[in-house]
Amino acid sequence: MSETLSGVPVSPGRASGPVVAVAEPAAAPASGPAPSDPQAEAARIAPAAQVVVERLEALAERAAGDAATILLTTAAMAGDPALISEAERLVAAEGRPAPRAVYEAANGFAKALSAAGGYMAERVRDIEDIRDRVVAELQGTAPPGVPDLSGPSVLVARDLAPADTAGLDPALVLALVTEEGGPTSHTAILARSLGIPAVVAVRGLLALHADALSVDGDTGTVEAIDAAAPVVSAVRQGAAEWSGVGRTSDDHVVKVLGNVGSPADAKAAAEAGAEGVGLFRTEFCYLDAPSEPSVAEQRAAYGAVLEPFAGKPVVVRTLDAGADKPLAFLSPETEPNPALGVRGLRVAFDRPEVLDRQLEAIAGAAADSGAEVSVMAPMVATAAEAEWFASRVRAAGIARAGVMIEVPAAALAAKEILEAVDFVSLGTNDLAQYTFAADRQLGAVAALNDPWQPALLRLIALVGTAARESGKPAGVCGEAAADPVLARVLTGLGVTSLSMNAAAVRAVGASLAAVTLAGCESAARAALTAANPAAAREAARG
Amino acid sequence: MSETLSGVPVSPGRASGPVVAVAEPAAAPASGPAPSDPQAEAARIAPAAQVVVERLEALAERAAGDAATILLTTAAMAGDPALISEAERLVAAEGRPAPRAVYEAANGFAKALSAAGGYMAERVRDIEDIRDRVVAELQGTAPPGVPDLSGPSVLVARDLAPADTAGLDPALVLALVTEEGGPTSHTAILARSLGIPAVVAVRGLLALHADALSVDGDTGTVEAIDAAAPVVSAVRQGAAEWSGVGRTSDDHVVKVLGNVGSPADAKAAAEAGAEGVGLFRTEFCYLDAPSEPSVAEQRAAYGAVLEPFAGKPVVVRTLDAGADKPLAFLSPETEPNPALGVRGLRVAFDRPEVLDRQLEAIAGAAADSGAEVSVMAPMVATAAEAEWFASRVRAAGIARAGVMIEVPAAALAAKEILEAVDFVSLGTNDLAQYTFAADRQLGAVAALNDPWQPALLRLIALVGTAARESGKPAGVCGEAAADPVLARVLTGLGVTSLSMNAAAVRAVGASLAAVTLAGCESAARAALTAANPAAAREAARG
Repeated sequence: MSETLSGVPVSPGRASGPVVAVAEPAAAPASGPAPSDPQAEAARIAPAAQVVVERLEALAERAAGDAATILLTTAAMAGDPALISEAERLVAAEGRPAPRAVYEAANGFAKALSAAGGYMAERVRDIEDIRDRVVAELQGTAPPGVPDLSGPSVLVARDLAPADTAGLDPALVLALVTEEGGPTSHTAILARSLGIPAVVAVRGLLALHADALSVDGDTGTVEAIDAAAPVVSAVRQGAAEWSGVGRTSDDHVVKVLGNVGSPADAKAAAEAGAEGVGLFRTEFCYLDAPSEPSVAEQRAAYGAVLEPFAGKPVVVRTLDAGADKPLAFLSPETEPNPALGVRGLRVAFDRPEVLDRQLEAIAGAAADSGAEVSVMAPMVATAAEAEWFASRVRAAGIARAGVMIEVPAAALAAKEILEAVDFVSLGTNDLAQYTFAADRQLGAVAALNDPWQPALLRLIALVGTAARESGKPAGVCGEAAADPVLARVLTGLGVTSLSMNAAAVRAVGASLAAVTLAGCESAARAALTAANPAAAREAARG
Repeated sequence: MSETLSGVPVSPGRASGPVVAVAEPAAAPASGPAPSDPQAEAARIAPAAQVVVERLEALAERAAGDAATILLTTAAMAGDPALISEAERLVAAEGRPAPRAVYEAANGFAKALSAAGGYMAERVRDIEDIRDRVVAELQGTAPPGVPDLSGPSVLVARDLAPADTAGLDPALVLALVTEEGGPTSHTAILARSLGIPAVVAVRGLLALHADALSVDGDTGTVEAIDAAAPVVSAVRQGAAEWSGVGRTSDDHVVKVLGNVGSPADAKAAAEAGAEGVGLFRTEFCYLDAPSEPSVAEQRAAYGAVLEPFAGKPVVVRTLDAGADKPLAFLSPETEPNPALGVRGLRVAFDRPEVLDRQLEAIAGAAADSGAEVSVMAPMVATAAEAEWFASRVRAAGIARAGVMIEVPAAALAAKEILEAVDFVSLGTNDLAQYTFAADRQLGAVAALNDPWQPALLRLIALVGTAARESGKPAGVCGEAAADPVLARVLTGLGVTSLSMNAAAVRAVGASLAAVTLAGCESAARAALTAANPAAAREAARG
């Protein structure tokens, strides 16, 4: 008996082996009987939360990069005094047992986060994970999530909390497969950074109840196999051989760069062999700040990220506030659709002084570090916006100004935009979200957000052509750049640099080195005219 | 002294004259002293709300089409028993004076609507208008909004409530200018349907404190002029002469059709001379229903709309639920960005039986009425989705199946989509929203949502070319079709029919009749390569 399902491949490689299912969270704790000593019952909550905080922090210490950041954020949420005191109040005032009180308090927070939308709503899964961990601690049961693995296993879940994937041992996990989730979810990004093949949004997965699965992280195919079939560890395209200089076998140069958002990321990218940084996200400097950080604070923070890249090219993206990253001191009131609202550069139109201070800090950090710094703006839609931004960048004494192409209109106006700036960089995650009108955060529309969608590739092709005609560079810094086969297609479409998570650098460099530019162009032509993402993948491989 | 501002032109024509400013709402009513007889105080609320309901209903009777629908909806909100009883409770339980109680209760509702997002959030302005009207009634002051006009005037406001514009006498209103609002706001749609020149999103308008203004609803220019300058009534392109058959002067056929969403709309469109219906919105049949209406109920409701168009072409759009039109029985939980969520045809993927019942009802209504009915789906992104829809339409015995092109990906895949269906129809409002990643409902990004944006026209051109090559029709049913000059550009881009509000039919028909196809094509080429919307308008006129 063999049954085949398909989903969205989000991390390459193939593997097969026995299934370990991640347990669904336990049922809601009972709401009674009321504790005989409410004060003592309430006093149990803070220590239990503290245990969870410490466990998550310990996990964070063993993790790196994105995974570590996410775990530390989750740990901070678990220790939130507002959550604990609300739970204590529910014990004292409402007579709830402690587990039920934590459950209700966390659900209240989750509801508020969900109503706030955007970035906040994305944290709902995290707070539910915290809820289940604290409840398990209070009940003396095993914490939810991935059970201890006794051998190599294919992990199957509805969706994974960041804490689940972050604690995984890649040596024992053959592959990750989820019923929900999308190509740009935390789960997918983490799977890629751990080098584990993964397929998400596999409808019917949980109902399959397979004993063993064969998983293809390149095509998105998941097949139920005999439990006695031999275990196959992740088979990946050979990434060992790479000279460290991004180029095709016939010496067409395509820089292989890193995406970074912290000093630790920058170190990891440099160690992985990135030739520079194609996307330096600056939000880390603002996210936890109660007010705008000073120019001196920003300069020091940026300098720490630039430091490993002295003498190398680094593209700094100015603050991408709004939408999924609201900042208290900047963001406007609630918007019905934050992703279509005042975010990215749009925030700066009303508050140009915040942008100017950031540019001053970037110029200073560039001088401090000796990195070859360019600056680009997020969420640009028109050539007029690009011109406005470039003039401020130049006024700040920074030589090279560019913009992200992540709004479809910007791709359609690439020619005029390239007349106004020195380079562009395709943000394929947001570009896909807008091109398909499909929220990146929403599992139900995840299949549309596939970077292999021919319609998305056609928009990228417009930008590649405009870049070639203008003689100016066009990079890609979305998740698309991390796919070794797609990297060839992007090169064939005219893209001149690829920027990605550190973990993907070597595989992408090796993939480009194994093919000619003409090979890339023929793969691109085949993918552009394909009927759907699966056909595009297939055609590009052929 | 002359100062010139610019905004987004949303209703064509030019006019100038003295300014009448619409008063900003009065300050919040005092929260004390507590009434001596709370019961008597609380008893004042319901009758005051009833007066407001009756005034709004009277306004609705004098209005038509969209305006009447909006006023009736607002009236229903004013009479909402939940609002009244919450205000009564605030008097009885909290000792608030009645005006303050209404103020607080309405604000609570507004906050909840705002948090709900999407269509609900759009009603916030309406509930604030109701609040101010009931408060004024309780305080015995004049209702807020447009003061009585003593002569021809240019109306200036931050934004206008539907009730404001709906009560206007076009004979006395020379033009409408607002500081906020967008091209697809109710205000803009109503201004067009009243034939009043209008410019919205004019930053700096209120701070200008002009005594008199010259307003250009074609270019978006608003100029402060001398108060003594002569009054100029709306100068509009001559719309008088139209044969009633949509074609250019050299007989290239472009059908001029109506957008309808109710039997009254259909009657108005037929009377205005529409050659058929290019967009029949079916949501009216579901919006107030607690559960899915039966096939028989739907058949009767659709038949009443089709009736004036026996023997003529009518394109019925299947249910566009979700996003700004959530339906209790269909819509999923809260989404962070409803406009990028499960809406339109996406709702049907999980609930095909709802679609099939609607198709059965449409087929029945088509037989009953004798209209030449086609059916199209909203929010299609890929050719595979289009194929899925077309197969269900054909299974229902309906001859012609099409899809809306309102997701950028669909425009980029127009060729493949046209292989799967019989026709396409461009929904330019949503297409602009996604192409510019700019919420249609958000004043702050309104300038991006201009249908003259060259990037939007380039996407339309892709569809026009694909349609020409396939030999299948491509219509436009967004607000863009109602602009007489843009109608020529769209024709030049390859669009084969234009569907609009009844009020625009004659002007668009006359505009097309006055130009050759080659003239349209040359206007299209000029607009496509323009640097911005204003330049595109200018170029197309030249």
